[in-house]
Amino acid sequence: MKIICNKSNLVKGVSIVSKAVPSKTTMPILECILIDATMDIIRLTANDMELGIQTEIEGEIIEHGMIAIDAKIFSEIVRKLPDNEIVIETDNNLQMTITCEKAKFDISGKSGDDFSYLPIIEKNETVTISQFTLKEVIRQTIFSIADNESNKLMTGELFEIQNGILRVVSLDGHRISIRKIELKEPCEDRKIVVPGKTLIEISKILSGEAESEVCMYFTNNHIVFEFDNTIVVSRLIEGEYFKIDQMLSSDYETKVRINKRELLNCIDRATLLVKEGDKKPIIINIGDEVMELRIKSQLGSMNEDIMIHKEGKDLMIGFNPKFLIDALRVIDDEEVDLYLMNAKAPCFIKDEAENYIYLILPVNFNAI
Amino acid sequence: MKIICNKSNLVKGVSIVSKAVPSKTTMPILECILIDATMDIIRLTANDMELGIQTEIEGEIIEHGMIAIDAKIFSEIVRKLPDNEIVIETDNNLQMTITCEKAKFDISGKSGDDFSYLPIIEKNETVTISQFTLKEVIRQTIFSIADNESNKLMTGELFEIQNGILRVVSLDGHRISIRKIELKEPCEDRKIVVPGKTLIEISKILSGEAESEVCMYFTNNHIVFEFDNTIVVSRLIEGEYFKIDQMLSSDYETKVRINKRELLNCIDRATLLVKEGDKKPIIINIGDEVMELRIKSQLGSMNEDIMIHKEGKDLMIGFNPKFLIDALRVIDDEEVDLYLMNAKAPCFIKDEAENYIYLILPVNFNAI
Repeated sequence: MKIICNKSNLVKGVSIVSKAVPSKTTMPILECILIDATMDIIRLTANDMELGIQTEIEGEIIEHGMIAIDAKIFSEIVRKLPDNEIVIETDNNLQMTITCEKAKFDISGKSGDDFSYLPIIEKNETVTISQFTLKEVIRQTIFSIADNESNKLMTGELFEIQNGILRVVSLDGHRISIRKIELKEPCEDRKIVVPGKTLIEISKILSGEAESEVCMYFTNNHIVFEFDNTIVVSRLIEGEYFKIDQMLSSDYETKVRINKRELLNCIDRATLLVKEGDKKPIIINIGDEVMELRIKSQLGSMNEDIMIHKEGKDLMIGFNPKFLIDALRVIDDEEVDLYLMNAKAPCFIKDEAENYIYLILPVNFNAI
Repeated sequence: MKIICNKSNLVKGVSIVSKAVPSKTTMPILECILIDATMDIIRLTANDMELGIQTEIEGEIIEHGMIAIDAKIFSEIVRKLPDNEIVIETDNNLQMTITCEKAKFDISGKSGDDFSYLPIIEKNETVTISQFTLKEVIRQTIFSIADNESNKLMTGELFEIQNGILRVVSLDGHRISIRKIELKEPCEDRKIVVPGKTLIEISKILSGEAESEVCMYFTNNHIVFEFDNTIVVSRLIEGEYFKIDQMLSSDYETKVRINKRELLNCIDRATLLVKEGDKKPIIINIGDEVMELRIKSQLGSMNEDIMIHKEGKDLMIGFNPKFLIDALRVIDDEEVDLYLMNAKAPCFIKDEAENYIYLILPVNFNAI
């Protein structure tokens, strides 16, 4: 194989597919990127058997062929080369020579025949949304997946399509995050659970432009994302996702409208007094026009008043401050609405159209 | 005590003195900052018994007094307060109340009487250099102090004043870094060894402006730096520093002039093939007009040619690439001169006036 491509294209392509290279594996071939120039296009592929990514890069093919090469060392070398044309050449002994200006590297590759190709997925009906929307939806929900593997379904996100609406849900037993997107085109109803890791990696690759689109299509076991010159294939998590609709009530006894930035800054300050692992709640005391927040720990105590618009009853309620912070950080609105029932019932932070809903369970506290 | 000061002044002052707060200590009082408003100035002090820093901040004293307060929690609270006036008040039980807008923190302090004040140093003859110069000199030498404590003197830097010239030296057994500065005013000859930690911390505090000055003065056991509203007092390292002059020869058989950036980038690329802890040398082969660099490891091999101007003999010599990188990174010149004798003798990188000298010992290698 002999190919020529410019550095920035190669760096970009390698960086995209590297997202599917596992950090630890017992199979050395999985630590490789496949460079495939057997056809008239240069394709890079990486695949950890759960998540596979393939991308095309521009370049000139002088001699057809393919080779698998250690992703880490190849990526580091390519990054540090001068900003110019890079020539990649392999011989019959799987030795790869990388030349750029006067610099020349020789490293050993592996046979491309040992490489696991991406599964071939039949393109059925596709769902199309903008890269911007997909990236935003992931950012606004991914923080509330569970990070331990004891309940596999909680490590993923529900993608539910119903009546032309895509609903993305994550939950970890203490809170639920929901984002709703109207699809531009009608589409068959379905429910799948996408691994959190897939969403985290794809969100790093997405350009986030509103004009660029992502096509998604599905099988029973896989989801495929296609955008730019890249294909991402991921296994799905098997099993039936949690029934959340019965937890979503629109009744409330207290509604609070509050400046998001003020509330976030205040809770952020309060958490200074909470050491990691310590489970001190922040206590919120809702009165007329003023909400008092206070926290007390071994380090000291803090209290602060914030002006609010209130409807309904006064209420005192405690929360894990981290859960409030996580939700408030991803909301872009200047003002947010909190809906509460009583000190034992969940708090809902949501907009009027319910494009986002954050449900947070309260915690017990001893009134100070 | 009751004082009022604005957030940015307080944050700046706390950040300065925090550099002298030890990360680990068995004496809780050392983890504190002393806020001293007993006189008509607000002074912050921290002192780990090796290094002490005191700074003055602007503010209004409503009630005189002083208190010692945990540096970490105080600094975090102050940083996260709104950008406005901060009121700090203490009661007779050493409780401190910090108020800013509607936020109010209560934390416990310690008695200022338990705090170790900075040693009182008599101001003898002072040496004055610009903040810019001191900061640069530290940056250009600090990388070659030894980081293990087995030879205490190697963890510091020699400050040697002779005939109106300040020479700063660091060495670690494999290399020596030397920077020379002409002092503006005559001054008594002396030789002291300043702890590396002191220099690292002071270089973080120095603004680095060429117009601002630093006054240094000395006792047998201490060095004092005075600048802006800040005083830094550090113990010296006792003992006689290494005699380096006999190692500095100006004889050479080969002189190479080379573009610094090209050389640095090339060595930087070459180190990709060297795993941490692996001691592969970079081999430099100096010929007429071309210098070839090559390296070989388990990961692969690399070679690159760089154009040079050469005087004298051809030479093949090996180095630890990290030592070359460290020296080249801090040299600001576009072109550098390398002076070499033979494959067993040190390489000197220096400018003509010898304002900087980097001596690097070569390593053995098996010619490939």
